[in-house]
Amino acid sequence: MSNPVIDVALDSLHHVAISVKDIRQAVAWYTRMFRCKVTYQDDSWAMLEFANLKLALVVPGQHPPHIAFVHAEAERFGNLHPHRDGTRSIYISDPSGNAVELFSPDSI
Amino acid sequence: MSNPVIDVALDSLHHVAISVKDIRQAVAWYTRMFRCKVTYQDDSWAMLEFANLKLALVVPGQHPPHIAFVHAEAERFGNLHPHRDGTRSIYISDPSGNAVELFSPDSI
Repeated sequence: MSNPVIDVALDSLHHVAISVKDIRQAVAWYTRMFRCKVTYQDDSWAMLEFANLKLALVVPGQHPPHIAFVHAEAERFGNLHPHRDGTRSIYISDPSGNAVELFSPDSI
Repeated sequence: MSNPVIDVALDSLHHVAISVKDIRQAVAWYTRMFRCKVTYQDDSWAMLEFANLKLALVVPGQHPPHIAFVHAEAERFGNLHPHRDGTRSIYISDPSGNAVELFSPDSI
């Protein structure tokens, strides 16, 4: 607890992805409601940057809602999928069936 | 972007709450998978603290899954509900029906 902003002894969430009906409508609402930056947007998903987290908006059927973490040993869970931005991750499920994405810290 | 850790020009997420089948099972899995702190736990929900966000685990029917933000004008959306820890918040819905909780910044 030596750092009041980020406790480096704890892992970080990378982003959270929630389902929305319409990307354009959702981006309009979230950017009107909150101070956030749109860092990506197409018809199937968008990424909003907040102070402490990225919030992804996804359309059901195109991308699953999920929570994404940085995990020191992401490779342990299988082959990581490379993304266009250079990051690498893998999806697993928690015991309740929630989609959990694990990012390799060296790709962030 | 003057601060590499927290961009104060952007709003923050306060926590994210996801549905799980069983709190004890979920807490065991998340604490085994990640470096996080259990700051609250009973049979209907638990709160896990990560470096940049709190993750709530909730049982469907007891608490809705939701995403919670700090909003400078939370009071504008109605009467805030006081919580036992002194925080005050209100639930609204986004256009897709997702539950969104707004916390008054002066109660955080």
